[in-house]
Amino acid sequence: MSVPVEDGFYQGLKVFDALQYSNWFGSPQNDAVSYRIDRTLLQQWRDGGLAGVHVTVTLWDDARTCVDRVTRWYRAFQESADLIQICLAGADLGRAKRASRTAVLLGFQNTSPFEDDIGLVEVFYRLGIRVAQLTYNIQNFVGSSCYEIVDGGLTRFGRAVVNEMNRLGMLIDLAHVGEKTSLDAIEHSSRPVAVTHANPLSFARHPRNKSETLLRAVARSGGVVGCSPYPPLMGRVDVTLEEWCQMVADLAAMIGAEHVGIGTDTSLGWTDADLLAMNVARWSRSENWGSNLPGQTGWCEPVAWYRSSNDFPTLCRGLRKVGLDEKEVAGILGHNWQRLLTTILG
Amino acid sequence: MSVPVEDGFYQGLKVFDALQYSNWFGSPQNDAVSYRIDRTLLQQWRDGGLAGVHVTVTLWDDARTCVDRVTRWYRAFQESADLIQICLAGADLGRAKRASRTAVLLGFQNTSPFEDDIGLVEVFYRLGIRVAQLTYNIQNFVGSSCYEIVDGGLTRFGRAVVNEMNRLGMLIDLAHVGEKTSLDAIEHSSRPVAVTHANPLSFARHPRNKSETLLRAVARSGGVVGCSPYPPLMGRVDVTLEEWCQMVADLAAMIGAEHVGIGTDTSLGWTDADLLAMNVARWSRSENWGSNLPGQTGWCEPVAWYRSSNDFPTLCRGLRKVGLDEKEVAGILGHNWQRLLTTILG
Repeated sequence: MSVPVEDGFYQGLKVFDALQYSNWFGSPQNDAVSYRIDRTLLQQWRDGGLAGVHVTVTLWDDARTCVDRVTRWYRAFQESADLIQICLAGADLGRAKRASRTAVLLGFQNTSPFEDDIGLVEVFYRLGIRVAQLTYNIQNFVGSSCYEIVDGGLTRFGRAVVNEMNRLGMLIDLAHVGEKTSLDAIEHSSRPVAVTHANPLSFARHPRNKSETLLRAVARSGGVVGCSPYPPLMGRVDVTLEEWCQMVADLAAMIGAEHVGIGTDTSLGWTDADLLAMNVARWSRSENWGSNLPGQTGWCEPVAWYRSSNDFPTLCRGLRKVGLDEKEVAGILGHNWQRLLTTILG
Repeated sequence: MSVPVEDGFYQGLKVFDALQYSNWFGSPQNDAVSYRIDRTLLQQWRDGGLAGVHVTVTLWDDARTCVDRVTRWYRAFQESADLIQICLAGADLGRAKRASRTAVLLGFQNTSPFEDDIGLVEVFYRLGIRVAQLTYNIQNFVGSSCYEIVDGGLTRFGRAVVNEMNRLGMLIDLAHVGEKTSLDAIEHSSRPVAVTHANPLSFARHPRNKSETLLRAVARSGGVVGCSPYPPLMGRVDVTLEEWCQMVADLAAMIGAEHVGIGTDTSLGWTDADLLAMNVARWSRSENWGSNLPGQTGWCEPVAWYRSSNDFPTLCRGLRKVGLDEKEVAGILGHNWQRLLTTILG
């Protein structure tokens, strides 16, 4: 199904994937050279022609553990400089593309690394973190997740964190965040915000997907919503490329194509036990499969038309078939994220 | 004003103060022998005839820091065994009294040491912690404080923490906790709960004080409410001993004298800068004086009739004057706490 990369239109784009969390570093048990990056995963970014990708540095950890996780990326930037570089500004996407590398935007899927300490926001900014999702799957000091019993909204500490992220130039991500906390954050933020990986609730009823109210509010902030081909977020496993691309086009019609992007939620190299651990972490003693569809344990088989970054040209082809023009497709595939990153990161 | 300790009635009691947080350990800067306990504060407990006291080990810290804070108490139990011993069971109050010591019940004013890790509850139980207040002054993984913008109630992790505290035998304290989170916790807990240091809202309108609904719910659980002579919680600085004792008697009439105790919130040896640090911690960059009355910066001057544990006999005399009988006064001064501790700790 994949489009030849010789496709001149695709080759001219700065393609950006707004969320991936693969098992880049393995574990000390599996890897004789502890925590050295798996270059086959980086090669997929190159094969797919990705100028940039937002990678998840942590889902759950505290400050000290996250420092370890960041340093693994520093080592990777040093040892795999032929394939990747750090992304600290929107312009890094163009620089990386010209150097045939992928710019890696380091982000947190939780504000847990900030603990209850406002000073840690700048600490991690200086360490290279440029995105933070306000909550992962449980309530924290900042606000509530989309899975919490009651979402009380953005807390007083949450307001301070939003202010600090605004001041420093760190992108606020609302993908796993509860609706009230999200709306409060948009209201409180002086800068555009993002939903890096979620779909419209109207396409699939799922706690992780977003209401029209929220999607419009993100767009009004100047932000971008990253649509995902991750099966649980599509609501069923047999969604076709055409259906998914129509969903993207419908969202573009609703909030403006310049506010739509892609965030695949690509998660390669993990076992089912890893998925359980990602969701249960240390907070629960009950089985919890996170965003999985009802009754589904373990990873869902990916759809045939999107398995890894190699398939981005396929997404491009699909989007061009549902009536979006070249400018809109270019925006959705990466240029909208580039604009947002330039605005936020400078 | 103080009653001679020769008072036979008072001498027969197992007096218990359900909350103190004094500067027992100083700081490395102030103390040539780093973090050695200030024995003058322990001597006040003995002079006041206290069989037991619930001490705050932490307001804010994470697991690692709290381990340090606990080990300072271990050292104190070893080096000041003539004055204090650890309290791990209700019966320890009687044992301590017979040995002319004070039993020290170690507690957290926050579940922050449990981080987002359910396994840490048992870790701290095994380290000797027997009380945990579900939140201090901001929202955490468990629920919301009485100062939060919106109190969304007990979270899913909060339910797991309550279950685990029930299982292990750790007392749930709701003193700084928001009303909805408190009511949820009482509903969810299979064991009695406590409010270690707060007054009825009907006596003084203050975010830290408790509604009739909550006070009755604590009593229905089999728990105890610790009344406090801390000026901010009395709403004004000129409350007399008689007024305060009448407040205690009124609460006893409302919820039953067997559910009323004392938790003084005694806080000795701190500077005004310490108080600010206790409230601002690391979460805010704004001045925040916590429970202080409007416009009041720094510590409030204590009332003349309660300055330290030395004045417990004065409280006893006051309580006997407002129409409570000897059994009721004995319960309020300590025996109700002893019953609750025996129930919870075994």
